[in-house]
Amino acid sequence: MQLSARELAAILGGTVEGNPEIKINRPSKIEEGGEGSISFLGNPRYEAYAYQTTASILLVNRQFQPRQEINATLIRVDDVYAAIAILLQHFGAPEKPEGVIAKEAAIHDSVSVGERTSVGRFSTLEEGVAIGSDSVIADQVYVGKGVQIGCNVFIHPGVKILKDCRIGDNCVLHANVVIGGDGFGFAPQADGTYQKIAHVGNVIIEADVEIGANTTIDRGTMGSTIIRSGVKIDNLVQIAHNVEIGKNTVIAAQTGVAGSTKIGQSCRIGGQVGFAGHLTIADGTEIQAQSGLASSVQSPNTQLFGTPAIGYKEYIRSYAVFKKLPDLYKRLFQLEKKINQGLNGNE
Amino acid sequence: MQLSARELAAILGGTVEGNPEIKINRPSKIEEGGEGSISFLGNPRYEAYAYQTTASILLVNRQFQPRQEINATLIRVDDVYAAIAILLQHFGAPEKPEGVIAKEAAIHDSVSVGERTSVGRFSTLEEGVAIGSDSVIADQVYVGKGVQIGCNVFIHPGVKILKDCRIGDNCVLHANVVIGGDGFGFAPQADGTYQKIAHVGNVIIEADVEIGANTTIDRGTMGSTIIRSGVKIDNLVQIAHNVEIGKNTVIAAQTGVAGSTKIGQSCRIGGQVGFAGHLTIADGTEIQAQSGLASSVQSPNTQLFGTPAIGYKEYIRSYAVFKKLPDLYKRLFQLEKKINQGLNGNE
Amino acid sequence: MQLSARELAAILGGTVEGNPEIKINRPSKIEEGGEGSISFLGNPRYEAYAYQTTASILLVNRQFQPRQEINATLIRVDDVYAAIAILLQHFGAPEKPEGVIAKEAAIHDSVSVGERTSVGRFSTLEEGVAIGSDSVIADQVYVGKGVQIGCNVFIHPGVKILKDCRIGDNCVLHANVVIGGDGFGFAPQADGTYQKIAHVGNVIIEADVEIGANTTIDRGTMGSTIIRSGVKIDNLVQIAHNVEIGKNTVIAAQTGVAGSTKIGQSCRIGGQVGFAGHLTIADGTEIQAQSGLASSVQSPNTQLFGTPAIGYKEYIRSYAVFKKLPDLYKRLFQLEKKINQGLNGNE
Repeated sequence: MQLSARELAAILGGTVEGNPEIKINRPSKIEEGGEGSISFLGNPRYEAYAYQTTASILLVNRQFQPRQEINATLIRVDDVYAAIAILLQHFGAPEKPEGVIAKEAAIHDSVSVGERTSVGRFSTLEEGVAIGSDSVIADQVYVGKGVQIGCNVFIHPGVKILKDCRIGDNCVLHANVVIGGDGFGFAPQADGTYQKIAHVGNVIIEADVEIGANTTIDRGTMGSTIIRSGVKIDNLVQIAHNVEIGKNTVIAAQTGVAGSTKIGQSCRIGGQVGFAGHLTIADGTEIQAQSGLASSVQSPNTQLFGTPAIGYKEYIRSYAVFKKLPDLYKRLFQLEKKINQGLNGNE
Repeated sequence: MQLSARELAAILGGTVEGNPEIKINRPSKIEEGGEGSISFLGNPRYEAYAYQTTASILLVNRQFQPRQEINATLIRVDDVYAAIAILLQHFGAPEKPEGVIAKEAAIHDSVSVGERTSVGRFSTLEEGVAIGSDSVIADQVYVGKGVQIGCNVFIHPGVKILKDCRIGDNCVLHANVVIGGDGFGFAPQADGTYQKIAHVGNVIIEADVEIGANTTIDRGTMGSTIIRSGVKIDNLVQIAHNVEIGKNTVIAAQTGVAGSTKIGQSCRIGGQVGFAGHLTIADGTEIQAQSGLASSVQSPNTQLFGTPAIGYKEYIRSYAVFKKLPDLYKRLFQLEKKINQGLNGNE
Repeated sequence: MQLSARELAAILGGTVEGNPEIKINRPSKIEEGGEGSISFLGNPRYEAYAYQTTASILLVNRQFQPRQEINATLIRVDDVYAAIAILLQHFGAPEKPEGVIAKEAAIHDSVSVGERTSVGRFSTLEEGVAIGSDSVIADQVYVGKGVQIGCNVFIHPGVKILKDCRIGDNCVLHANVVIGGDGFGFAPQADGTYQKIAHVGNVIIEADVEIGANTTIDRGTMGSTIIRSGVKIDNLVQIAHNVEIGKNTVIAAQTGVAGSTKIGQSCRIGGQVGFAGHLTIADGTEIQAQSGLASSVQSPNTQLFGTPAIGYKEYIRSYAVFKKLPDLYKRLFQLEKKINQGLNGNE
């Protein structure tokens, strides 16, 4: 695919400054560039690269004022990052499903597969599975009994979706994701052993959800573990039984959410965060990486940090003093000494 | 499956209060309920739901005293949670193996498979594998040379068990678990590179162990990594080479145990906990989520928290002051000022 | 394989003390031993075992002075650990590829496979894949379009390598690793939803890299995520888009590195460490387990600990006072009281 600056400006709603006929065939990073590539200046930290880049076209913000000459043709847009997202969709669009059902797949007679949907090699679709149109089930995927998958879904290689779970339209499940494993529930017995609690629930993933590689989402003990529409979950995340994640919440890698916790809408959760079970987290909560949530969050849009998590600013301020604790300790000690001497001296 | 209150009471060792002939066909959560479902009141926090639930039957503790009228028929039991575990086993019993060896499986001639054991599609059983009776090897499972698997074992889709490892009776390995990868051992060389240390040991998993999805357990460098009977391990946990986990210990999600550490019996370990290598952790140790164990634990039944972990109560007390550190710092500063002035004034 | 003490001493550059003709056929741990095994004393903590071991041969350091009689024949070497590495390579050498292309593999006509390379059952090699000689692609592996894999590479069962990624010579990828999933990049929209940013880059893994089970390495948004030669990565690690890991750096289990962070050469990174995005970490940095890196590290060979990470020694000193905070708080309070009284008394 080759596009001219003029064509790109039309696609991106931008204006050309330089040669409108110059053509590119790929995106590049500003520090790599290369003839025939389009690069971008988003973060002002990288401005120096704008004057050196060998990219043919450079995307910049509408109000950008170059302080030196730039060789590349500029396209000015309202929002560089939004423009990149559109641009990358042109160059990185996932392959359209070819509607091929691999002969090496094991598909139960009762399965229904929508139009143009592909099923890959060495994949299993069990009894009662239903998949909408325009979806891709890649190779080595397992889809258990009664699972329902929507339209325009992409299930990457090695994903395992266990029985009765549901995947909404436009979802992307990355490689080796596991949906619907049993929750971690055991009843302690008098002799110190644990009896497994059977898990009769399922996982419901609504539309427009993306789930990163090797992430695990357990089924409900009873009822459902629910991932609401628009949620984005990174790699190696653990979502336990009966958790609910609110609409448009984003969760970075290696975070874990324990059983029955309900996270609100539009939360932003850093990597390696841990949530205890049975919590309720208000909408718009922002949680710094590696924090540990031990109690519920009532007020929307709270910013949190630490284990157990407290206000972000409070944590930062306390941690600033934490770093000085040895000094503080010494000063306290000296003060004690001084006082005892001083006061004694006054007796 | 449909059961009457009378039948359920018999199964659960409980007593009926209400209509003994009312029938249910599924468990439900107390806040969801629904006609024909049985729900339960375990945690007193949820008592309000007991007066609203539309479930046909409600399981409660023997001593529960309702403060309002309850529509559901009650079954009183000694331990609600134990009763639920029994109940869910009736409704959520894993499917019995059908004794079907899929024609799409790759099974070496030397493999022995017990009665009623199933082997799924696209699974590989290498030379010398032996599997007991009543087990399920699901689809896309890899079982390496010489692996021995017991009776009544359930190996979920995508699990990889590498050569010479052993899995005891009644174990459950969830999807995409990896058993027997090489440990992380490298000998530093003079030129800054690392030479791989070969791992000639294996993994031994005793009976009644459950291992969560995408968890990894490495083989011993020499000798075995050992998971004792009754251990329950959650999703995405890392167990390194030559670790030993004692009987009936439970480990929550995303915890990591470094090489050669020995964890005692009946420990309860939270999520995202980290253990350094070569530690010994006493029986009954309880470790709060996200703690980091840097040294051994000698006394049984210790409760720990923090990184590096200290006594649970000590951590909580110190953390309470941590939150006040900016104030404490200011007060110290003021005190210093006051004293210097005050004492000076007395000179 | 059976070797005499004499032969072993020749292989390991050591000297025999005892019976040079005694033979062993396996390595063992010093506390397990057994006739016909060779064990070793590396860590002086285990010296007591040297006097009890039933191993036939014991590897010890050149300068080791036994304080009691030892039954085993000794082999003295300059570096016990280096000798073990060599020894284990003799006993634990990975099986040589047999050059068998399984008939149950799905291989595109355009794929090129080098001499003596094996391809396992239920594995898929897509269009344009090229694999060097002496490599093993185990069972249930997925290799996407255009992927290039070097010589003497071992890809364990269940690994997924997505399109256009590159794996250098002598690499080992453990079971269920995912290479080349999309990065976690989404452009926030005015209505609170997120638009997926397509990822058009790839992952480049240079030579001599080992990657642990269930680890995930995302492709670059544009350009590459790069793992330099000699890097060793443990299990369940997350490497985000456009990260670069320098030569010979080792990363322990469950660590996560956010997007575009560049880690230097010969760093040693503990388990469960987290790195924010867009950081630069100097060569030789050592980071204690569970630390959180929120800012770049400029000076080589820095030792760090804590969240956010500070100097290792500073953290340890501050944490020592943290443990005394309740006491410190009380003392400050008493001092305040005393002063107020004392100074008042002087007024």
